[in-house]
Amino acid sequence: MEKGPEMNPWFVSGLVDGEGCFSVSFSFRKKLKVGIETRPSFSISLNRRDLDLLKQIHAFFGCGAIRYSKSDRTYKYESRSISDLTRRIVPHFERYPLVGSKSKDFLIFADVCRKANANQHLNRDVLREIIEMAYEMNPSGKRRHKKKDLLRELDELKV
Amino acid sequence: MEKGPEMNPWFVSGLVDGEGCFSVSFSFRKKLKVGIETRPSFSISLNRRDLDLLKQIHAFFGCGAIRYSKSDRTYKYESRSISDLTRRIVPHFERYPLVGSKSKDFLIFADVCRKANANQHLNRDVLREIIEMAYEMNPSGKRRHKKKDLLRELDELKV
Repeated sequence: MEKGPEMNPWFVSGLVDGEGCFSVSFSFRKKLKVGIETRPSFSISLNRRDLDLLKQIHAFFGCGAIRYSKSDRTYKYESRSISDLTRRIVPHFERYPLVGSKSKDFLIFADVCRKANANQHLNRDVLREIIEMAYEMNPSGKRRHKKKDLLRELDELKV
Repeated sequence: MEKGPEMNPWFVSGLVDGEGCFSVSFSFRKKLKVGIETRPSFSISLNRRDLDLLKQIHAFFGCGAIRYSKSDRTYKYESRSISDLTRRIVPHFERYPLVGSKSKDFLIFADVCRKANANQHLNRDVLREIIEMAYEMNPSGKRRHKKKDLLRELDELKV
């Protein structure tokens, strides 16, 4: 990955306070003991004319990838690896905190990433807690699964 | 105006690179010699849940006002006074520059504000130049008047 001109880290946090998204989604996975995969994601979506800015963000964090989103015709920078999120993304926003309402999302996000990095999301009780926390985030976002369906899956697990 | 906790100036520029808007609009004004009023505006629109962030921006710049926009149900911080724009808004973004494509809008905006602050926008030739420049900005924005109608008004002026 090309190293761009240094962006001021506070600039990055300001941009993310407006345009960034911290989310935690879930998928049913029969192969997992707990039956549910936890998927944290940090992303920024920008118009094509700001693709260069997105590349600089990519270089700044040194992880993740940029892809084109056909559905909303934007470019999205996204980091999903638990290791990258824990080592690079979360520490940045702890050092250069968000100011707006998104800061609440970030606190939950950081907690989920740390738990997942320690493999605690494979424990049924912790996963239940993670699901409850995640559904407090991004009130305007769309969800593929209802919370009660995820929790029922956990309740029905053979112990 | 209450002084909020200090925001990092780079944070403000980062937020504005995403959510800010520099615009120059025009109104027909028979009372003016040139017949057209030049109206530069700097604004940031945020959701209700980020009203507090907007108040901090307001305190940071020490000028402008916040109002509720019924049409898109957001709160908008806006600074429109030529004097405030020239003394407070423009110098901030010259010191802590934008990185994305909005930086092009800003360069035009700063030039228009300086010309208006020196009352050059009351000169027909300079106003024609300002109109041409302004219509290069915000390609996605809506305009009340077509450029050709503004320029025709100038052409028809009695000298």
